[in-house]
Amino acid sequence: MRIKDIRERPVSLSDPMSNAGISYLEMTASAVAIDIDTGEKGMITGYGFSSVGRYAQSGLISERFAPRLLAIEDVEGANCGLDPVRCWATMMANEKPGGDGDRAGAVGVLDMALWDAAAKIRGIPLWQLLSESYNEGNFHKRVPVYATGGHYYPNSDLEALKDEIKGYLDQGYDRIKIKCGQGDLADDCTRIEAVLALLDGDGSRLAVDVNCMCSTSGTTQEMADAYAPYKLAWIEEPGHPHDFELLTALTGYYDGPIATGENLFSMSETYNLLSYGGLRPDRDMVQVDPALSYGMVEYANIVRLAEAGGWPRSQMVPHAGHLLAYHAVAGLQLGAHEIAARRDFILGGLQDEVLIEDGTGSLPQTPGIGFESHAQLWALLKEL
Amino acid sequence: MRIKDIRERPVSLSDPMSNAGISYLEMTASAVAIDIDTGEKGMITGYGFSSVGRYAQSGLISERFAPRLLAIEDVEGANCGLDPVRCWATMMANEKPGGDGDRAGAVGVLDMALWDAAAKIRGIPLWQLLSESYNEGNFHKRVPVYATGGHYYPNSDLEALKDEIKGYLDQGYDRIKIKCGQGDLADDCTRIEAVLALLDGDGSRLAVDVNCMCSTSGTTQEMADAYAPYKLAWIEEPGHPHDFELLTALTGYYDGPIATGENLFSMSETYNLLSYGGLRPDRDMVQVDPALSYGMVEYANIVRLAEAGGWPRSQMVPHAGHLLAYHAVAGLQLGAHEIAARRDFILGGLQDEVLIEDGTGSLPQTPGIGFESHAQLWALLKEL
Repeated sequence: MRIKDIRERPVSLSDPMSNAGISYLEMTASAVAIDIDTGEKGMITGYGFSSVGRYAQSGLISERFAPRLLAIEDVEGANCGLDPVRCWATMMANEKPGGDGDRAGAVGVLDMALWDAAAKIRGIPLWQLLSESYNEGNFHKRVPVYATGGHYYPNSDLEALKDEIKGYLDQGYDRIKIKCGQGDLADDCTRIEAVLALLDGDGSRLAVDVNCMCSTSGTTQEMADAYAPYKLAWIEEPGHPHDFELLTALTGYYDGPIATGENLFSMSETYNLLSYGGLRPDRDMVQVDPALSYGMVEYANIVRLAEAGGWPRSQMVPHAGHLLAYHAVAGLQLGAHEIAARRDFILGGLQDEVLIEDGTGSLPQTPGIGFESHAQLWALLKEL
Repeated sequence: MRIKDIRERPVSLSDPMSNAGISYLEMTASAVAIDIDTGEKGMITGYGFSSVGRYAQSGLISERFAPRLLAIEDVEGANCGLDPVRCWATMMANEKPGGDGDRAGAVGVLDMALWDAAAKIRGIPLWQLLSESYNEGNFHKRVPVYATGGHYYPNSDLEALKDEIKGYLDQGYDRIKIKCGQGDLADDCTRIEAVLALLDGDGSRLAVDVNCMCSTSGTTQEMADAYAPYKLAWIEEPGHPHDFELLTALTGYYDGPIATGENLFSMSETYNLLSYGGLRPDRDMVQVDPALSYGMVEYANIVRLAEAGGWPRSQMVPHAGHLLAYHAVAGLQLGAHEIAARRDFILGGLQDEVLIEDGTGSLPQTPGIGFESHAQLWALLKEL
């Protein structure tokens, strides 16, 4: 079994939305197709599509990682299947330790396409392959989900925010995450209260993402004090991803859950977060994104690492809500899947066959990841 | 003042040498030229060349960072000079925090070319501009240096190692660093003793680099115990760059100096190393590489951060020994400059006008960094 061809194309994710830290007008992602010559079963193509926020990785893929994959003489593993672990080790040969940034996204999107192909070769959906590989065959019968939205838009107002969230509730979501932290605290509270009014005032159904806008010198405690009365589901990404002192201080005076980790990209970075960040395994959440963190091979190790450190899988909530993460949440029985619920956004929604009801999603049955049944992504990927 | 053109080309650094972690057969680096339209003074070209070990960054430069630089309308700063800090801020716009890996090297090599141009526009060598910008006009009159070599080569033996080191002593070096950690401890000790015999048995003139080959489960303490009697100048890069527990344990039972940091690439990563690594400001060394860590703008902040934490500049010893680092050590009065002393290696040696004597180097006077007076690098850069 051999990798015959790897095609990558950068795709614009340009969107007028922004969070408290960056604009998405110039954002890009990599669309990837990998052809596997399986011998008996003919040619199988696996697809990958980058997570959001860290740009396409065309250069790193063509310069380093695709050539290493193409040089592997045989990618077959156990059970006549494709072995993503062997492919992963070859991609990472002659890479020095540390420096887990763009490289982790380049490897991640290739690893995604390899897992898609591996599941297709086995003729099963990816969640099932992950469940067999890493979870003793267990999986979520229904996948807990939440809708993420409430970004900042030019000339937007509170009515537009409320309309957006109402739309998500109509789609079957019951938990919502919105952006905060771009304006002042009073503005944050106005946004929170407007959305809470749509959620029966139940703070456990609302999370807020402040996108690193706290700093140790700033108003983290004021923010925590202002948010505390709402008893929110969680506050996400309070400070710089490496600022363990801020996290430790925050978890000292804020009782509610904190979620972070989306800007950490490896097992060793996660280990230090859990070691030095003051996080509490009974309530806080780890949001490392498998697609940005060297893919499922590394992410499965991250989940096991966290578990060994006393972190139940329920506290692992992957960032970004791409299709791979849905399979990971389902197959590894993680805490929840984030869904970019705005359907006109390229990465919005899930596979067409997934039905959302009462805050959970159904299990897709199509072999592989199922990019073929996501209209916007398939329109881009089929061109490869 | 405006950036008119940016040219980048990947260059092979292929070499049969290896360290305990990776081979250099496929290693590459980016050669960069940036044309600045200065108005009155005409067109000035600044050059940059990647540090070793982290590959060329052609893709990231062409996809993200060069277009952002080219879009800046005016790059002029104080004193009719080019302002690298403004350029840096524009390169980093819409980049999320964390993920300091390949991106840090891409920005670093562009920042290097901008500082080269800025010094040329001022008509002064870069060490002088860095001294004025970040060190109140102070600088090293002679720059402390050490020779690095003693890599592993196919079919090499102890005699070849000794011949290599003798050659460095003949060139005027008095301190040497060699590689260890690829074989067993007995092999390490044989290498160390062979080289010590050439250094009057003075361990303070010999450092060893084990390139992350320790692990918490392995033989770190055995290694420390075996090396201790030699009273070495330092042990370099003992473990994984994020493994602060290993460092803390090692500095607990090993009294001699430890050097690390070459695989950390930002101010926040350095902050955590100094916070959690158990390192001792009176003896240990921080080896963050300015060219791999977002360039001189970030590196100057790293030096100030370390100083604020009680780390004297003498303990900052940049990795890799490229021409930029020489100016940084001279202009910021850092601890020492590493020189890849094998002259046939592309990145070996320094500017031709630098004279090595008694373990120190002279100050170059050519405006800028002086790539034009480094034969191997200029042969590559002039093609741009």
